[in-house]
Amino acid sequence: MWQLHQFPLCPFSRKVRLLLGEKGVGYELIRESPWARRDEFLDMNPAGQTPVMTDAVAGLTLIDSTAICEYLEETIDKAPMLNGPAANRAEIRRLVAWFDEKVYNEVVAPLMLERMLKRIVHRAAPDAKMLREAMKVANSHLDYVDWLLDHRRWIGGPVLSLADLAAAAHLSVADYLGGIDWRGHDRTKEWYAALKSRPSFRPLLSERMEIVTPPPHYDKVDF
Amino acid sequence: MWQLHQFPLCPFSRKVRLLLGEKGVGYELIRESPWARRDEFLDMNPAGQTPVMTDAVAGLTLIDSTAICEYLEETIDKAPMLNGPAANRAEIRRLVAWFDEKVYNEVVAPLMLERMLKRIVHRAAPDAKMLREAMKVANSHLDYVDWLLDHRRWIGGPVLSLADLAAAAHLSVADYLGGIDWRGHDRTKEWYAALKSRPSFRPLLSERMEIVTPPPHYDKVDF
Repeated sequence: MWQLHQFPLCPFSRKVRLLLGEKGVGYELIRESPWARRDEFLDMNPAGQTPVMTDAVAGLTLIDSTAICEYLEETIDKAPMLNGPAANRAEIRRLVAWFDEKVYNEVVAPLMLERMLKRIVHRAAPDAKMLREAMKVANSHLDYVDWLLDHRRWIGGPVLSLADLAAAAHLSVADYLGGIDWRGHDRTKEWYAALKSRPSFRPLLSERMEIVTPPPHYDKVDF
Repeated sequence: MWQLHQFPLCPFSRKVRLLLGEKGVGYELIRESPWARRDEFLDMNPAGQTPVMTDAVAGLTLIDSTAICEYLEETIDKAPMLNGPAANRAEIRRLVAWFDEKVYNEVVAPLMLERMLKRIVHRAAPDAKMLREAMKVANSHLDYVDWLLDHRRWIGGPVLSLADLAAAAHLSVADYLGGIDWRGHDRTKEWYAALKSRPSFRPLLSERMEIVTPPPHYDKVDF
């Protein structure tokens, strides 16, 4: 069985977990806190990042969420999440990169630093200015998702795709950390409610990070 | 014909150009300076980054270097650069991400800021401390490449792959900006000399960025 090395608020691990869930692949969670920089973990992944997926029996170690998702797409036919002809697949991958890079760097990473790492690791107060800026940028990203969903059924095109899973992974971590104001984003909210009610998403929403608690609406499908 | 929107020192565009060269695909270069944030470019790619690849006749716009490389792999059989079974392909993709994320963020981006953007855009002096740190980290990344090449013929496995093209793209930009000290890295130097002599690499090495000049060894195969 696969073992997924991760922590509850790792957005990249969430993306992989949503994909594993949609594909019906079982896995065991192994808690890893990358900021602790454990020697054994660095030996496994010199980049020091989660997720890492291992299968001891098959002798496999998969590293990097993009590489893992492509691997799962290539090896499991069920629930394809890179759909359509090559141009559609390119559009889905563009949007996955949008969330993994832009939304992560501008919104999720600052929120994780200010509201998670500063509490758990640095024992410091969050920087109110940084938080305001991250939430402002989050709002402009939600505007972009609203716009996409005005033109398409799902974020990456006519059917559910890895773009939706990546978006839900990052936005769910930002939401957990109180960084999302859903008001004025009805289309995105409706899309997110549909994602939240999927069986692949339920286990993630019920988990909690130590010390850091989410707002009351976080795990509610009707929010 | 494809049009590639890029600038000479964009490492992500270089990765795509090396892949296009290996596959024998013709393209036209369109100069874009993403830091100018032209409205027309932002309309094309809201992320504001190069490369963007367009084909006006086919009505295609491909964005994000990972999405573009996967598209080229899926649509052109010649010179496959994601080789082998799924686990090998995952290893190649892990290493591409290593160069696109870690080497870019820790080495290439600081060098581009200090030695290119500060001259061209900000008209400011480079920060000597930042440069020293980037070059120190570059050295540790070369150690890792030395180690990989002690265990494999090419960076991603027994055959030339996208991992080599990504590595060469990033290291060549760092080298242009004077950030690489090749001494003590014989294995990597030998590998890089082999890359430099490939027809896909020659056109890149002969191009120059305005104002910023490379060190004398930059375009020499014997360096």
